Amino acid sequence: MALQVGILGATGYTGVELIRLLLAHPEVRLTMVTSERYAGQKLADVFPTFRDRCDLTLQKISTKEVARQTTIVFSCLPHENSMAHVPELLELGTKVIDLSADFRFDSAKLYEKWYTPHTAPALLQSKAYGLPELYREEIRKTFLVGNPGCYPTAFLLSIAPLVAKQLIALQPILCDAKSGTSGAGRSPQQENVFSEINEGVVPYKIEGHRHVPEMEQELSKLAGEPLRIRFTPHLIPMDRGILATTYARPLKKIASDQLQKIFADHYAKEPFVRVLPPGQLPQTKQVRGTNFCDLAIHYDERTEWVTVLAAIDNLTKGASGQAIQNMNLMNGLDETMGLLNTALVP
Amino acid sequence: MALQVGILGATGYTGVELIRLLLAHPEVRLTMVTSERYAGQKLADVFPTFRDRCDLTLQKISTKEVARQTTIVFSCLPHENSMAHVPELLELGTKVIDLSADFRFDSAKLYEKWYTPHTAPALLQSKAYGLPELYREEIRKTFLVGNPGCYPTAFLLSIAPLVAKQLIALQPILCDAKSGTSGAGRSPQQENVFSEINEGVVPYKIEGHRHVPEMEQELSKLAGEPLRIRFTPHLIPMDRGILATTYARPLKKIASDQLQKIFADHYAKEPFVRVLPPGQLPQTKQVRGTNFCDLAIHYDERTEWVTVLAAIDNLTKGASGQAIQNMNLMNGLDETMGLLNTALVP
Amino acid sequence: MALQVGILGATGYTGVELIRLLLAHPEVRLTMVTSERYAGQKLADVFPTFRDRCDLTLQKISTKEVARQTTIVFSCLPHENSMAHVPELLELGTKVIDLSADFRFDSAKLYEKWYTPHTAPALLQSKAYGLPELYREEIRKTFLVGNPGCYPTAFLLSIAPLVAKQLIALQPILCDAKSGTSGAGRSPQQENVFSEINEGVVPYKIEGHRHVPEMEQELSKLAGEPLRIRFTPHLIPMDRGILATTYARPLKKIASDQLQKIFADHYAKEPFVRVLPPGQLPQTKQVRGTNFCDLAIHYDERTEWVTVLAAIDNLTKGASGQAIQNMNLMNGLDETMGLLNTALVP
Amino acid sequence: MALQVGILGATGYTGVELIRLLLAHPEVRLTMVTSERYAGQKLADVFPTFRDRCDLTLQKISTKEVARQTTIVFSCLPHENSMAHVPELLELGTKVIDLSADFRFDSAKLYEKWYTPHTAPALLQSKAYGLPELYREEIRKTFLVGNPGCYPTAFLLSIAPLVAKQLIALQPILCDAKSGTSGAGRSPQQENVFSEINEGVVPYKIEGHRHVPEMEQELSKLAGEPLRIRFTPHLIPMDRGILATTYARPLKKIASDQLQKIFADHYAKEPFVRVLPPGQLPQTKQVRGTNFCDLAIHYDERTEWVTVLAAIDNLTKGASGQAIQNMNLMNGLDETMGLLNTALVP
Repeated sequence: MALQVGILGATGYTGVELIRLLLAHPEVRLTMVTSERYAGQKLADVFPTFRDRCDLTLQKISTKEVARQTTIVFSCLPHENSMAHVPELLELGTKVIDLSADFRFDSAKLYEKWYTPHTAPALLQSKAYGLPELYREEIRKTFLVGNPGCYPTAFLLSIAPLVAKQLIALQPILCDAKSGTSGAGRSPQQENVFSEINEGVVPYKIEGHRHVPEMEQELSKLAGEPLRIRFTPHLIPMDRGILATTYARPLKKIASDQLQKIFADHYAKEPFVRVLPPGQLPQTKQVRGTNFCDLAIHYDERTEWVTVLAAIDNLTKGASGQAIQNMNLMNGLDETMGLLNTALVP
Repeated sequence: MALQVGILGATGYTGVELIRLLLAHPEVRLTMVTSERYAGQKLADVFPTFRDRCDLTLQKISTKEVARQTTIVFSCLPHENSMAHVPELLELGTKVIDLSADFRFDSAKLYEKWYTPHTAPALLQSKAYGLPELYREEIRKTFLVGNPGCYPTAFLLSIAPLVAKQLIALQPILCDAKSGTSGAGRSPQQENVFSEINEGVVPYKIEGHRHVPEMEQELSKLAGEPLRIRFTPHLIPMDRGILATTYARPLKKIASDQLQKIFADHYAKEPFVRVLPPGQLPQTKQVRGTNFCDLAIHYDERTEWVTVLAAIDNLTKGASGQAIQNMNLMNGLDETMGLLNTALVP
Repeated sequence: MALQVGILGATGYTGVELIRLLLAHPEVRLTMVTSERYAGQKLADVFPTFRDRCDLTLQKISTKEVARQTTIVFSCLPHENSMAHVPELLELGTKVIDLSADFRFDSAKLYEKWYTPHTAPALLQSKAYGLPELYREEIRKTFLVGNPGCYPTAFLLSIAPLVAKQLIALQPILCDAKSGTSGAGRSPQQENVFSEINEGVVPYKIEGHRHVPEMEQELSKLAGEPLRIRFTPHLIPMDRGILATTYARPLKKIASDQLQKIFADHYAKEPFVRVLPPGQLPQTKQVRGTNFCDLAIHYDERTEWVTVLAAIDNLTKGASGQAIQNMNLMNGLDETMGLLNTALVP
Repeated sequence: MALQVGILGATGYTGVELIRLLLAHPEVRLTMVTSERYAGQKLADVFPTFRDRCDLTLQKISTKEVARQTTIVFSCLPHENSMAHVPELLELGTKVIDLSADFRFDSAKLYEKWYTPHTAPALLQSKAYGLPELYREEIRKTFLVGNPGCYPTAFLLSIAPLVAKQLIALQPILCDAKSGTSGAGRSPQQENVFSEINEGVVPYKIEGHRHVPEMEQELSKLAGEPLRIRFTPHLIPMDRGILATTYARPLKKIASDQLQKIFADHYAKEPFVRVLPPGQLPQTKQVRGTNFCDLAIHYDERTEWVTVLAAIDNLTKGASGQAIQNMNLMNGLDETMGLLNTALVP
C-alpha cells in the first residue's frame, strides 16, 4: 500500500520540488499539501505545472488533520514555525522529515546562538541528521529527520573521505560556495528581484552564514574533535545548483590518482555520489533536478592544497530529493526509489 | 518485452532529451546511440549527467547494425543525412521516427523548395505526420513518422480548434513566436555564443522560416483549402521553451467563454494539451521538460481579434517528447507512458 | 551655467538610469534626489555604483525645497503621486518632465478609465507629449512633459512613417511586444522574483495593458481618426530591452526597397532613430543603455503584411534617455547632449 | 590635437569594448580598426551598435599602414600573433598597449612554459606591466605596455595592500575566482554555446590557469621573494564581471576596522579602486561597464583568515578600460579621462 504523504508549507521552492518528485514516486500517495498564504486554492491554480497532475487543494495546517491523513510528513515550514508543529505530529504517530534548521543540531544551545529559542530541545537527541551517506542506519530507525542544509550537504560529501582516511590536516579547511538563487526562497525581497540578481555575482554573509555551525558540528564529529571552517557563499544568476570548492592541506604528499581511488572507493556503493573520472569537473547543470552529487578531487603539488569540487542541485540533493531519500530509508523502501532521473540538459 | 530502441545522432540536444526521457520509460531498452563526432566515447564521458545511468558507447552508424539491435529508431540526424539512412532501415524492418524535416512534407516539391533534393520521395506518401492530436490513427499504423517541427507543433495546436469549428476567417492568420535557443542546436556558431544571446531579444528569418511551409501544409489540410500565414520567430535568452502568440479574426462575434468552452471540449481527451482556465496565461517555465502544451484563448471585442497563446518545451512536446508519444502509439503502448512528469520549477 | 536638476523618486530603475546619464551630461548639475524609502541615506550607500561619482543624500520631498534647488525636475514617482506634486512645482517655476502616466493623456476621462481620478486635469492641455520625433516643437516650448511609456515609444516610432505616408490600412494594426523585466520596476513582487522570471517567457495583460490607450491616442492623432490596435506584451528573462513587432496591411502592393527608402527618408534627420540596412534586424542588445531606436521594415508579398521591428532600451529611449532628450529640447541644448553613447556589448 | 588611435583585432570582445570607450574619449580619434575575419566590412555592419557612431571600415593589418595612421595602437590580437607585429610597430614609432599575454612577463622562459616560443624577448625588459596601481611611473615613460590579465588585476589589487604592509603570511594564499563568459572570447566553441553555459556553474583549469604565473610573478615582486598561489577559476552564466575571493593568513591578530583603514589609506588616491565601507560587499553588477575595482576586506577571528573580495568588469578594468587608463598615462593625459562612467544598473 502506498505511503500517505503530506507536505507542510508546500508552496515554497522546496515544497514544489517535493511535489514534483513525489508525483513520480511509485509508492507514494500525496494526500495533503498546506499553505497559509494560498489556503483554499487548488495547487494547480497556484502552480500551473501541476494541472492534470495533482488535484489537491491547499489547506491551512491542522495538526490533527495532518496526522489523520498522512503517515509521514515533510515540513517545509520556516524554522521556528516548524518545531511548533513537529512534536504534536510525532505524538500522533506521523513521522516527520523537517527541511528547516529546527532539527539539524545536536545542541539547543548551538541552535539558539544562530536562530531562536528552541521549543522542543528533547527531540534533538532522538532526531537523525538526514545525510544518508553519514547516518544511513540512524535514519532507517528514526521518526524524525533533520534534513541537512544545502551547503552542508555539498561540503560534507566533499570532506568526509578526507577526514575519514585522515589524509588532511584538520585546519585550515576552507569552503568557497556558489549557489543559485532558489536557495533564498520564493518570497519577494529586494535582494531576489530579477534585475538585482541577473548578470551579477555577489558574496554574502561572509561574517557567518547559518549553515556554518551545521557544517562544523558534523565535521567535528567526523574528525573526533572540534573544528572550524572558513566559509564564503556567493549568489549566482541561475535558478538551481551549488558548486562548492573545498580546500584542505594534506598531512603528507599524496598522488592525485591515489586521492581519486580513495574517493572512488569511499563512495563506491553510494547511489547518489558520483566521483568523476580524472579530467572531468563537476558542473551544476549536469545534476540539475537530480539527487546526484558529482565530485572531483585534485591535488596541487606546487602549493600542497587538496581541492574538492562538488556539484549538487540545492533543491534536490540539497533539500527535497535528499528528503525523499530519507523517506525511502525510514520506510524500508529502496533508497533510490523515485529519484533516479537524469538532469534536464540543456 | 521491452522495446529495443536506438538513437541516430544522439549527441545533439534532441538526442540528449530523448535519452533523458527514454531512460525513464518503463517499456524501453535503449540499445544503441550513434554519433559521428564522438564515436568510440562513452555517452557518460560526453554528457556527465548520464554517469551511472547509461553505460552505452557512442558508435558510428552502420545501418545493418542499427537494424539488428533495434526495433525502432529515432533519427536526430540533420535533414538530408537522415533520409540517406531511413529507407534502408525501413527495409530491414526497423521503424523510424525522424526528427529532421525529411519526412514532414507530403510533397517532395515543397520540401525541395526549402531544403534539398529529396532522395526518398516515395516515403512521403506512407509516412505519418507525427502530431498525435491530428493524426493519431495514422501514427498507430505507420512505420515512419515525420516528427513535427517545434513551431508547427505550437502553432497547429493553437489554431486547430478554431479551424475545425470554422470560427475564424482563413486569412489573415499571424503567428508571432518566441523561442529559447536550444532550438538552434548544440553546434557552436557565432549566433549561439552565450554573450551574443544573453540579455537580448532578436527576431530572425522574418522573410521565411523553414517551418512556414510545414505550418501551411497542415493548416491547409485542416481548412480544406490552401492557406498562408504570417510567421515571425524571435530568439529569447533561455534554454528551452516556445511561446507562440497566434492571431486570427473570428467570422462573427463570439464570447470569450464560448471560445474557452470550445477549446476545452476540443482537447478534453488529449493527455498533453491543457486548456488553462480563464485568467491564466501559458508560461514556458511551467511546461519545461514536459510534453504538455498549455493553451489560453482570448477574444478582444474592441479589435475583433482572437488571440491564442501556446507554451511548449521545444525539446519535449516540440521534438523528443512528442517523438516518444509517437513511439508509444506506433507500438500499442499507453500514449502517455514515460511522459507524465511535471516541469522543473523553478 | 549648468542646469540645476532634481529627480523625484530617484531610487527606482528609471531614477537610477537618469542619474547614470545625468552624471555624464556636460551641462547638468544634479542637485537633489528624493526617496521616501531611503531618505537620509547616501545615494552611494543604496547604489554602490555611485560611490565616488555622486555625493548626494536622498531626501524626502519638500516641494518648496525642490523648487528652490532645481530649475528642472524629473518625476519618477508613481502615477497619482506624481500629479500631487507637479502643479505646485510648476507654479514655483520649476519645469517638470514626468515619467509617470499622469501627463501623457490629452483627456482626463481617458486617463481616469485606466488609472485614477485626475487631480490636475487643466495641465493635460498645456503639457507636451514627450516623443521628440512627433512633438519636437511643442516640447521646446513647454514647461511640462508627459514622458511616453516604453511600449508606446517603440510602437509609435514603428508605425509613424507608415501612417504619415498613408501606406497602410488603418485597421487592423497589431503590436506584439517583448520586454525585459526592469519595466516592471524595482519593488519586490512575486512576479519579479528571479526564479519566477528566469528561463521562461510569459504573456501578460492581454486583455488590455495601460499603454494601449496611450498608443491609440497618439496613433489616432497621426491618422486623423480614432483607431484601435491589438497589443500583446510578453515578459522576457533579461534586464533591459523592448523588441516590438508591429503588423499592418499595405493599402497597395509595395516593394520592400521602397518601404526601406520611405523609412530612411522619414528618419534621416532623427539623431536617435536608426533605420537598419536591408538584411539587418534590430537586436535589443545593440541598443542597450543607449537612446537609440533601431528599426527594420519588411514587406511579405505572400501574405501582404508589412512588419516593422523596433528595438529600444526600455529604460533609456523608453524612459530616462528620452526624458533627457526632452530636457535638452526644453532648455535649448543640443538634443543629443549627454546621450551619444554606444551599447554595452556584450 | 587628438591622439590618433588604432585597434588591431578589433572584433573580439576587448576590441569592441575599446571602441565603445574610445568613442567617448575627448582626446582620441579612432583612425584604424583591423580584423582578418571581417576585413572590408563596415564596423557598423558587424556590430550594429556602432551605426551612426563610427564610420570606419575594418582592414587587414599592414604594419606600415598602421604606423602611418596612428600614434598609439591597442593590440587585441591573440598571443603569438601580437608579438609578430609589435616590434615593427615600435620601430616605426607607434606606441603599443598589448592586451595579449605576450608582454606581461619579465622572463621569456616563464612565458614559454605556458605559451609558445617568444619571438621578441628583448622587449620584455623594456615593457611596463600595465597595472597603474603598481607601475604608474613606469607606464608613464614606456612605449610598450603589457596589459594585465583580468584575473591578475582583481587578485593583485586585492593582495597588494596586505603584502605591502606585511600583514599576512606569504603562504598560503588562495584565490577563488568567478568570471562571466566574455573572458573566454567571442569565437564560437562548444564550451561557450549559450545552452552549455546558461543555468550552470563550472570550475575549469584547476590544475593551472595561464594567469597563475602572471599572478605569481607580480606577487613575488611585491613580496620580495618567490611565492605561489592556489587559484581556482569558475565560469558563471553572465556576460561580464569577475568576483575574486582571496584568502590569506594574518601574521598576527588584526581588527577588521584596522584592516579597513589600511585598505582605505592604501587606495585613497587611486581613482579606480573603491574600498567599500564596512558592511558592503562588492557586486560585479555595480562595476559593470566601468573601470572600477570594488574591494571589501574581512577578518574572521574564529578561523584567522583574512578574506578580500574584489569585483571588476573583466572587459573594462580587466582589459580595455585599464588599457585606456594606460594610454592616458603614456600620453600625459588625466588618467581618468574617458573612463568616469557609472555602471549600467540594472
